[in-house]
Amino acid sequence: MWGGRFAEGPSAIMREINASIPFDKLLWRQDIAASKAHVAMLAACKIVSEDDAATITGGLDAVAAEYASDGVPEDWDLEDIHMTTEARLAEIVGPVAGRLHTARSRNDQVATDFRLWVRDETDALVDALTGLQRALVNRAGEHAGTIMPGFTHLQTAQPVTLGHHLMAYYEMIGRDLSRFRDARVRLNQSPLGSAALAGTGFPIDREMTAQALGFDGPTSNSLDAVSDRDFALDFLGSASQCALHLSRLAEEFVIWASQPFGFVRMPDTLSTGSSIMPQKKNPDAAELVRGHAGRIVGCQMALMMTMKGLPLAYSKDMQDDKPPVFEAAALLQLCVAAMTGMIDGADFREDRMRQAAELGYATATDLADWLVREADIPFREAHHITGAAVKLAERKSAALDELSLEELQAIDERIDERVYAALSVEASVAARNSYGGTAPEQVRARVAEARSKSGMET
Amino acid sequence: MWGGRFAEGPSAIMREINASIPFDKLLWRQDIAASKAHVAMLAACKIVSEDDAATITGGLDAVAAEYASDGVPEDWDLEDIHMTTEARLAEIVGPVAGRLHTARSRNDQVATDFRLWVRDETDALVDALTGLQRALVNRAGEHAGTIMPGFTHLQTAQPVTLGHHLMAYYEMIGRDLSRFRDARVRLNQSPLGSAALAGTGFPIDREMTAQALGFDGPTSNSLDAVSDRDFALDFLGSASQCALHLSRLAEEFVIWASQPFGFVRMPDTLSTGSSIMPQKKNPDAAELVRGHAGRIVGCQMALMMTMKGLPLAYSKDMQDDKPPVFEAAALLQLCVAAMTGMIDGADFREDRMRQAAELGYATATDLADWLVREADIPFREAHHITGAAVKLAERKSAALDELSLEELQAIDERIDERVYAALSVEASVAARNSYGGTAPEQVRARVAEARSKSGMET
Amino acid sequence: MWGGRFAEGPSAIMREINASIPFDKLLWRQDIAASKAHVAMLAACKIVSEDDAATITGGLDAVAAEYASDGVPEDWDLEDIHMTTEARLAEIVGPVAGRLHTARSRNDQVATDFRLWVRDETDALVDALTGLQRALVNRAGEHAGTIMPGFTHLQTAQPVTLGHHLMAYYEMIGRDLSRFRDARVRLNQSPLGSAALAGTGFPIDREMTAQALGFDGPTSNSLDAVSDRDFALDFLGSASQCALHLSRLAEEFVIWASQPFGFVRMPDTLSTGSSIMPQKKNPDAAELVRGHAGRIVGCQMALMMTMKGLPLAYSKDMQDDKPPVFEAAALLQLCVAAMTGMIDGADFREDRMRQAAELGYATATDLADWLVREADIPFREAHHITGAAVKLAERKSAALDELSLEELQAIDERIDERVYAALSVEASVAARNSYGGTAPEQVRARVAEARSKSGMET
Amino acid sequence: MWGGRFAEGPSAIMREINASIPFDKLLWRQDIAASKAHVAMLAACKIVSEDDAATITGGLDAVAAEYASDGVPEDWDLEDIHMTTEARLAEIVGPVAGRLHTARSRNDQVATDFRLWVRDETDALVDALTGLQRALVNRAGEHAGTIMPGFTHLQTAQPVTLGHHLMAYYEMIGRDLSRFRDARVRLNQSPLGSAALAGTGFPIDREMTAQALGFDGPTSNSLDAVSDRDFALDFLGSASQCALHLSRLAEEFVIWASQPFGFVRMPDTLSTGSSIMPQKKNPDAAELVRGHAGRIVGCQMALMMTMKGLPLAYSKDMQDDKPPVFEAAALLQLCVAAMTGMIDGADFREDRMRQAAELGYATATDLADWLVREADIPFREAHHITGAAVKLAERKSAALDELSLEELQAIDERIDERVYAALSVEASVAARNSYGGTAPEQVRARVAEARSKSGMET
Repeated sequence: MWGGRFAEGPSAIMREINASIPFDKLLWRQDIAASKAHVAMLAACKIVSEDDAATITGGLDAVAAEYASDGVPEDWDLEDIHMTTEARLAEIVGPVAGRLHTARSRNDQVATDFRLWVRDETDALVDALTGLQRALVNRAGEHAGTIMPGFTHLQTAQPVTLGHHLMAYYEMIGRDLSRFRDARVRLNQSPLGSAALAGTGFPIDREMTAQALGFDGPTSNSLDAVSDRDFALDFLGSASQCALHLSRLAEEFVIWASQPFGFVRMPDTLSTGSSIMPQKKNPDAAELVRGHAGRIVGCQMALMMTMKGLPLAYSKDMQDDKPPVFEAAALLQLCVAAMTGMIDGADFREDRMRQAAELGYATATDLADWLVREADIPFREAHHITGAAVKLAERKSAALDELSLEELQAIDERIDERVYAALSVEASVAARNSYGGTAPEQVRARVAEARSKSGMET
Repeated sequence: MWGGRFAEGPSAIMREINASIPFDKLLWRQDIAASKAHVAMLAACKIVSEDDAATITGGLDAVAAEYASDGVPEDWDLEDIHMTTEARLAEIVGPVAGRLHTARSRNDQVATDFRLWVRDETDALVDALTGLQRALVNRAGEHAGTIMPGFTHLQTAQPVTLGHHLMAYYEMIGRDLSRFRDARVRLNQSPLGSAALAGTGFPIDREMTAQALGFDGPTSNSLDAVSDRDFALDFLGSASQCALHLSRLAEEFVIWASQPFGFVRMPDTLSTGSSIMPQKKNPDAAELVRGHAGRIVGCQMALMMTMKGLPLAYSKDMQDDKPPVFEAAALLQLCVAAMTGMIDGADFREDRMRQAAELGYATATDLADWLVREADIPFREAHHITGAAVKLAERKSAALDELSLEELQAIDERIDERVYAALSVEASVAARNSYGGTAPEQVRARVAEARSKSGMET
Repeated sequence: MWGGRFAEGPSAIMREINASIPFDKLLWRQDIAASKAHVAMLAACKIVSEDDAATITGGLDAVAAEYASDGVPEDWDLEDIHMTTEARLAEIVGPVAGRLHTARSRNDQVATDFRLWVRDETDALVDALTGLQRALVNRAGEHAGTIMPGFTHLQTAQPVTLGHHLMAYYEMIGRDLSRFRDARVRLNQSPLGSAALAGTGFPIDREMTAQALGFDGPTSNSLDAVSDRDFALDFLGSASQCALHLSRLAEEFVIWASQPFGFVRMPDTLSTGSSIMPQKKNPDAAELVRGHAGRIVGCQMALMMTMKGLPLAYSKDMQDDKPPVFEAAALLQLCVAAMTGMIDGADFREDRMRQAAELGYATATDLADWLVREADIPFREAHHITGAAVKLAERKSAALDELSLEELQAIDERIDERVYAALSVEASVAARNSYGGTAPEQVRARVAEARSKSGMET
Repeated sequence: MWGGRFAEGPSAIMREINASIPFDKLLWRQDIAASKAHVAMLAACKIVSEDDAATITGGLDAVAAEYASDGVPEDWDLEDIHMTTEARLAEIVGPVAGRLHTARSRNDQVATDFRLWVRDETDALVDALTGLQRALVNRAGEHAGTIMPGFTHLQTAQPVTLGHHLMAYYEMIGRDLSRFRDARVRLNQSPLGSAALAGTGFPIDREMTAQALGFDGPTSNSLDAVSDRDFALDFLGSASQCALHLSRLAEEFVIWASQPFGFVRMPDTLSTGSSIMPQKKNPDAAELVRGHAGRIVGCQMALMMTMKGLPLAYSKDMQDDKPPVFEAAALLQLCVAAMTGMIDGADFREDRMRQAAELGYATATDLADWLVREADIPFREAHHITGAAVKLAERKSAALDELSLEELQAIDERIDERVYAALSVEASVAARNSYGGTAPEQVRARVAEARSKSGMET
């Protein structure tokens, strides 16, 4: 296919390092679709005859049918999916196959195929992430009033509701969706017709192929079109940030499932046992989600480094764009599916959470706030008074509301009996009813909003 | 400030590892603005008196004036910009300063300040990148018809125009702008009022502070609001991709400025000499732009790794969010400025480019295309015929259009005299007039569009 | 300093992007030392006169004294520490200063200075890490018999001893030390005399300067010597892996310090409080150590990406070598110091650990092993029998050794009374006395070895 | 295999996310070897009978023979290579197979297998890199006197010899070898017998299995042994730095093969053509080597991020250790092989190099050095005089040695006729005869050393 200029064929090493067919065969559906759009346009623009176009289209359908039933053959000498398809087409329809490559190059062809693939995968991830949001909202609605300790620095900070905690992840996934959607808009331009790097002299209609393939229009600069991999980097960037979010939730599940926490029992279907320790039930799915974050970010790093400092236009380095994207997409799909399964199936142990919320003087802030509100003490001073109360309680190994009124008044005489009403964990969460706060009422409002926004059923 | 609970103060190591004031003092303007918005809201909601609010506001203005004239003092015992400001405020206005921290925590405060800072920096970068686009468009307009070799694999591929080449970077920067703008939309929600992690029991008005600070509204989940650093990661991600684009242009300048290429003379003002080799004029600015891409991507990697697997809500690890963002922002600002200077001042050597475009059989594709068009030969066959012509020309050390008609016809008899018109570099670029192609006409159209789109003057 | 060839000076942007003096002034001690070694050699080789050499040496000492007392001035026009020093030298000793730069270039000069700096920092880290090992060994000796739950997947797996757990980190730090030491050997060759890139025609003695600066010898290839930054990458790689180890221990401290675990109280001196929650005592030092791992790895990524694809010899991109190394070194030093403080000061709560070790059927493996040993059952079958016992115990909310002999024999009749002796956590840890196992005897042996190996006192 | 405790089997997602057999089947040889060593030791220690051990050993050999001829079957329910092998063993030899897992766990088993695999791969890379060094030395010997321009900042700096340039890479590869070898020493300890995390109560002999598998001895701490992946990170770190070196050489080949440089013709066997441009001969192998550096570094980043913050001991995240190591190893092997082929087959165009060395005033430093040496002018002043000469030559579009003596003396009268002898490129390289300099004599000495050191034939 390289023409008559080469004295020797590629050596064995070259065949192996050069062949992309082992991985780019994943693009076969996109490659067939783009070729069909291209040949239809060539015919419409009278660059090939209607008959030739019909023959080629029929041949492409035949090739596609073979791929669908038998898989794509891996012949390293044919280098990539484009040449593999064209070679098989030529076997089926004869020399007329050679007219398909008019006014295009593998450079614009692969850019088109790969964009289509990334777009499909983006759409699939948007669906999967929406499903994860739905699972989060359902469990949040169920646990709008379930009290657990809220942590900062993994130290008990203030009581929160489990529903509120789950809805925090709903927000993160919402930003992930927004990132994937923004990237899809940027991606959705058709490089087809940019040819090798400079455009083509044939009177093609790039708008037509763009439309046929669902693009918003053609790209504006042929040099950029064949050497741009922003759409792949955007995908990897969105995937990385999403994976980081999932890694945080996974970490929480791992910690919550430990014996000392005991906040959750992970579903049997997403746990494994041990080959040596018969009692073990390990939160493997959560750990793998957490671990995969590393690999997904590694994929992003890989392509960023590969693209660094490449002069225009296409360089062969860019063939290394696909393995990281394929790997990250597959891993993220698995992570989202596994996390949705974990959210759906997690057995939250309300008793353990409630009990833990009592530890650690979680309502100390409520005491300080009470002093500000009821005794008009500046917050900083109230904070100091409360610190003294906590210190006393710690010394007595008592909870804050187990201190007697005398003891509290010895610390500050402005404290009176009404304070006890503020010191229960129920009172604490109910009070935090500012917009976006943890109060069950707030959580229910957010859940209802989320449901109405996305047409989710209850 | 930690209240009455600690027996010993922090040790020397702790003071050093814990203090963020050496870097977060950069946030002082945002910190003052957010505190003023907060206290105005506390007064409007009757949580503090109008008098106290006025006193605090006046005090904050006084602190700001001191910072503006004398800089922000670095006292490690005060840990961060928030405590530094509050401590100074207390010295100025007395204990009433303690009312400022009602219904907020450093967790929502720093999230607010940092978002404001990133928003400001995003706006500054959008301006700078628009300036770079302007420079590119101007030089592209000037060189719409300047012929140079277009490269793939850094091998002469087809002739292109310098204007077309520069407009490829206009497209890349356009995507960078879109990325920064998308990120700004996602960022522009106010965390203020999320307090430590759970919201607050005080009857605050988060909509009011959001509006005062130019946010589109308040964030919807307090746990998320204090533990989210997506806005910082979005900024770093946008910066990385932009830096990668600049690294490609920088690489081209370095190669083009080399003696064997000689396509460009970099401006003296952006070059340096050597301490040992008196003849040297080095494209240092371009190299530094290329090198900085590494550091900017390193900043992104740093924060991604830091955020991986952090349980909710705020953890102290997140204090490591600022140094990478501050560093990347400063480096990218420098890179964009330097690149704009290079584009503005580059002395493109049209003669050398034109001459190089003649090398390497750059119009071989034009011969193949001619065969398809004029002799109705399938492209694959035309490609093969052309390969034979190139081989002959190489053997004779001649250009393609230096082969005689007899020689060409010996290769394929369907070639006739008209072919020579297709083999000049001028004809080649003029022919590639499909949308987005390299033809001067196309480049001028794109330049005009770019100018009208952004209201650029010619 | 660039000679008479430049028409205009560098522009404002260029001064800022080009100047390295803001950071490379950290190299001043190394720069002075290398210059003194160089001039002494020039004199010994009769390239400069003894008098001139003495004048220059005296001048360098004077400059050094100024730096030591007043700091290094930052004049961007002088670009870097080398020119800053040479300019000041010329002010002090006059034109003879110009003889110092004979037979060298800034390229070999900075390579030499930077190696010396990295070597010093490596030595400092080796000391600090040895101190951390000492702290680990001391606490391990103290807790050789303290029982805690050993985790896999953060699930209780088998009882272990705290001493054994701490000694795992002793091993990791040992590998870190080995890595730093190996890197030091590779680093310890002198680039001085490689000049700009090609060596020099002056009859210099590179062995002499190498020896004077404590190098093992001169580098063997001048092109490599000025464009190699492996020593910086080696340092960053060693730092990253060390930081990852510390991040694991930091994570454990964060989890152990949580209320549900309660395995440890971090020292007050390495904890902080909250501006809003008066009861909080946060393990900030541990979190910062964990977070810093991200930044240190980010530094490594930065330099790796910067170095990728740079042609020989020196390119200005390589000026971006220093900020990541300086940052990583400072962060790691802090991390090691903070971790040593945490190990020294951690208040391990033996009661809580012991109690947690009882949970989670930690001795189930011991039951399986007993069945293998005493009843000659293949391990796989024993594992299955034990699984049934755990299931029964779980259903009864009982510990394994609270099951009656009848209950156990109903599961497998080969079980007899002796089994109970194997089911206590003490018996479990004592039994694991294979080399490297968790038995107190093993831990004491390892501690003793570690002490004798490094001459540590008890 | 998880015993009798699980109510439901793993779900479909879990089977997919959990199964490592698709990739860890690469470890089968190591897994069989380690199992054979383990069972031989169990017999020697009387933990299993000699008969049982013989049966198991025979069975393992049978399984190995099946794998060798038919490949390893991928049954996701069997999770990994360990269970796949054990299950097949049980089919072949019956329940006695269950005795093999006595006194070990998959945790120490995989740590052992993976170390053995990394060690094998390290040895293979050491061989391959030694071969690359040999190729470099051979070509360097051939081109010890071939003159080319030496570049800094990709600007002509001083003439160098091609042999010297190639030997710079010999040095880099030498450091890579040293890094792999150091890592091998650190790796070479046997985790086998560490069991799940705590060691075992069976009276095993870890020294015996260590020796049988070629390890230097057993690891010292069981918790560390099962949760340590330093050996994998060391391998990835060494691979990354090696890949960075190769990326530099690859970049040079890409630039040198461009038409304007024309320093090299890459071998046909390692080049490819274009599907659209018949004249193209692209240096694809070099570009792929450069691009692969990104992926290899991405692999390192992946595992570093995965390991960050993992508490002891084994966590399932660590299953993500193998794909990056397998990928990096395969890519690096290909890169080294391709680069060796390029070095062997590169057709260096001496005429073009020589000609380019004349450009760019490459001998300006020689003029400055001459002034220092012959006229005793301080280097700084000589540098300035030379700058004026270069400026004049540039204005006249002449080479330095084309300036007349009058012209030179008008710049500085101390210049005399002898100067011309210093201004040829031959004189320039011959003069740089200091140790490690570019003089042909030096290069030949280094080549001879390299040959004698490694017993290479000429």
